Amino acid sequence: MKTRQNLAELFARESVFSARSAVFALKARKEGKPEIARLFQALCESESVHARRYLRLLRGRIGSTRENLDEVARRVIPELKDSCRDFAAEAGVDGMKVAEEALSHSRQVAGGYVDLINHAQTDNVAAYHVCQVCGFVAENAAPLKCPVCGALQMKFKPID
Amino acid sequence: MKTRQNLAELFARESVFSARSAVFALKARKEGKPEIARLFQALCESESVHARRYLRLLRGRIGSTRENLDEVARRVIPELKDSCRDFAAEAGVDGMKVAEEALSHSRQVAGGYVDLINHAQTDNVAAYHVCQVCGFVAENAAPLKCPVCGALQMKFKPID
Repeated sequence: MKTRQNLAELFARESVFSARSAVFALKARKEGKPEIARLFQALCESESVHARRYLRLLRGRIGSTRENLDEVARRVIPELKDSCRDFAAEAGVDGMKVAEEALSHSRQVAGGYVDLINHAQTDNVAAYHVCQVCGFVAENAAPLKCPVCGALQMKFKPID
Repeated sequence: MKTRQNLAELFARESVFSARSAVFALKARKEGKPEIARLFQALCESESVHARRYLRLLRGRIGSTRENLDEVARRVIPELKDSCRDFAAEAGVDGMKVAEEALSHSRQVAGGYVDLINHAQTDNVAAYHVCQVCGFVAENAAPLKCPVCGALQMKFKPID
């Protein structure tokens, strides 16, 4: 049964292609090419439709919400935090200050994910606001200043 | 200089985590848990902020729009089409009809990407519409029926 493995590989590749297309769209917009930016956005959306379709086909990998929360809290987040910590240290050794800061921010942001998961199951969280600089997720209202990277309130995107 | 490789790895991992979170959000919504769906959407957005930040740090990998279009047309799309074709054939052998159809649709959709790239540079494309079932990208207006998967017009999402 090679297909399960194939779908998992394509899911990962098309997710990455989709994310890269989003960045290429930003770049095209910055170069004053809005028509190409729109093209890359369309490709981004198309790839993301493919990725979602493959993931749905990988039924064994999409458990119940209960299982998904557990997997994210127990496996995904700890691995992410560890990698960000290790990579931030290596960036320091490499003398790449900007990368070190970005990775250190990501570690702090990922450190808050488990609280978010716990609160979502017990508290009444009305909305989330995501810092567009470092990814920090604020519950209910956007803070005046991002506690992780210091970005101003206007940099937060609401998810409701 | 280990950091460049670390950023590339984290970019891929957070892109995949972001895409999976979007699917977990759909699943939570289907289970009647809108508050958990919102949490997964916030995580999806946060991870996608991280992924974009890493990609921007990988400066060498983000060329000009000219180079990005070339790379996508010459490398990414042909590789994607080949994989979809091979994997569709293997899904046929595995007797996984639904996966075979999905992969065959993706191959057809990817086959249209190069035309999209060419048209975006020469024609005046006012908008794109992306089929939410198979990812087919229509130029200007959404068709009455998706030429790849047969989905109705209401299944198209506008990108403008």
